[in-house]
Amino acid sequence: MKRTAFFISDGTGITAETLGNSLLSQFDGIQFNKVTLPYIDTLEKAHAVALQINAAVEADQVRPIILDTIVNDEIRNYIAQCNGMMIDVFATFLKPLEKELGVHSNYTVGKTHAIQQMHLYKNRIESVNFAIDNDDGARTQQYDRADIILVGVSRSGKTPSCLYMALQYGIRAANYPFTEEDLSLKSLPACLEAHRSKLYGLTIDPFQLAAIRHERRPNSRYASLDQCTLEVRTIERLFRQERLPCINTTTFSVEEIATRIISEAKLVRQP
Amino acid sequence: MKRTAFFISDGTGITAETLGNSLLSQFDGIQFNKVTLPYIDTLEKAHAVALQINAAVEADQVRPIILDTIVNDEIRNYIAQCNGMMIDVFATFLKPLEKELGVHSNYTVGKTHAIQQMHLYKNRIESVNFAIDNDDGARTQQYDRADIILVGVSRSGKTPSCLYMALQYGIRAANYPFTEEDLSLKSLPACLEAHRSKLYGLTIDPFQLAAIRHERRPNSRYASLDQCTLEVRTIERLFRQERLPCINTTTFSVEEIATRIISEAKLVRQP
Repeated sequence: MKRTAFFISDGTGITAETLGNSLLSQFDGIQFNKVTLPYIDTLEKAHAVALQINAAVEADQVRPIILDTIVNDEIRNYIAQCNGMMIDVFATFLKPLEKELGVHSNYTVGKTHAIQQMHLYKNRIESVNFAIDNDDGARTQQYDRADIILVGVSRSGKTPSCLYMALQYGIRAANYPFTEEDLSLKSLPACLEAHRSKLYGLTIDPFQLAAIRHERRPNSRYASLDQCTLEVRTIERLFRQERLPCINTTTFSVEEIATRIISEAKLVRQP
Repeated sequence: MKRTAFFISDGTGITAETLGNSLLSQFDGIQFNKVTLPYIDTLEKAHAVALQINAAVEADQVRPIILDTIVNDEIRNYIAQCNGMMIDVFATFLKPLEKELGVHSNYTVGKTHAIQQMHLYKNRIESVNFAIDNDDGARTQQYDRADIILVGVSRSGKTPSCLYMALQYGIRAANYPFTEEDLSLKSLPACLEAHRSKLYGLTIDPFQLAAIRHERRPNSRYASLDQCTLEVRTIERLFRQERLPCINTTTFSVEEIATRIISEAKLVRQP
């Protein structure tokens, strides 16, 4: 069975989409056709949305799921007239929150992902620049400004994890890839030794590592299972020997890797 | 008045946090102390959370907001006994969804941000690598694989926007910074002309550009208001002349820039 699910917002649509994906992920057996419709902030746009919803009803022969985070009552009511199962997030939760907090909400469109506190936003963008500047061990002299330094062999998931931590949480994450030369040392490189308390190890199943590397450099020694197995074994031994905290990234998404490291290393998620 | 708000999950906490930030952003006057508690997946951890909630009640002298996306009933009920205003996302929405869809939900922990479809996940990570490989015009020969190419002067917001599109939506976004030499051409560089349909312009207020550049290279000609004004005027004229779509990033967050471009350029948000 196939169902269309609309995630509709007068802002970026990120909240509607995140919550919608979360709820629908609890229904494994059903195939959803997910459609995010952001910036629906006029009745004219709402009218176009209504036509799209009607077309989905026609095509699926079943009413769609409609999850919205629209603040404006008029626009929301217009869309609520469509034939769909409405999950109306703000209508459901804002009233009880108003009562609890003893104040009226602003009913201001697009607040969630707008820049609210400039210094926090600037910190996030700075952190993205920091992650790029300190990617792949290019510059180690900025490590004293890092909140965390991810270490691991090439292609174990360091770069996307650093970028996610920076973009979402304003965390300054550097990363250092262990080269064959580093691995032959059987101890921490000097540039890392000085920042031992910030180090966090990433490891990965050698088969998966070989598959990932194979896509980058097909049929190379770098991508061979022998080489990957050797590197992973060596670095895992080093992590144990140096008592570094470490995470196996094999089955984890970048969101899971990042939030687990943040949680374990007791870093602060900045809004 | 200050209120503590807990965002609690047995997974990454991203959904709880996103929804919580969204709801609370509608209450401007109140200062919230937001605490995200991810991976609360045992009764033991729930007990520690309960202690933390009790401490907040004591400190604030008012009960906190507790927004949770905990799937496990036992853990959720344990936390629901605390003195707080519970916003129970799954309990509120899963039952009606079950009824609508005619099936039971899985009640599986941590589904939202887990890797669900490997090919989609791999595409996201590939897109992150693509964004990094094609950052700052370093390699233009991969532009035929790009979904979009952001163009603009240095520090107008291209790199974070590309990374956000890649990480969140698996979109292959390259970026090309216009140098002074490019700007003196008064036409598109040849490497861009061939991919005209993929180009999207970014512009920014010269004062803000000067402030951003000043943090990178203080007191340089590069950061001077004269230079920034000249560059912005020249590139805006070029965007008009070449009829390129364009967005002014001055007041927008990276989420807003990315989702607006995706929407305008009719790119597909991949889950």
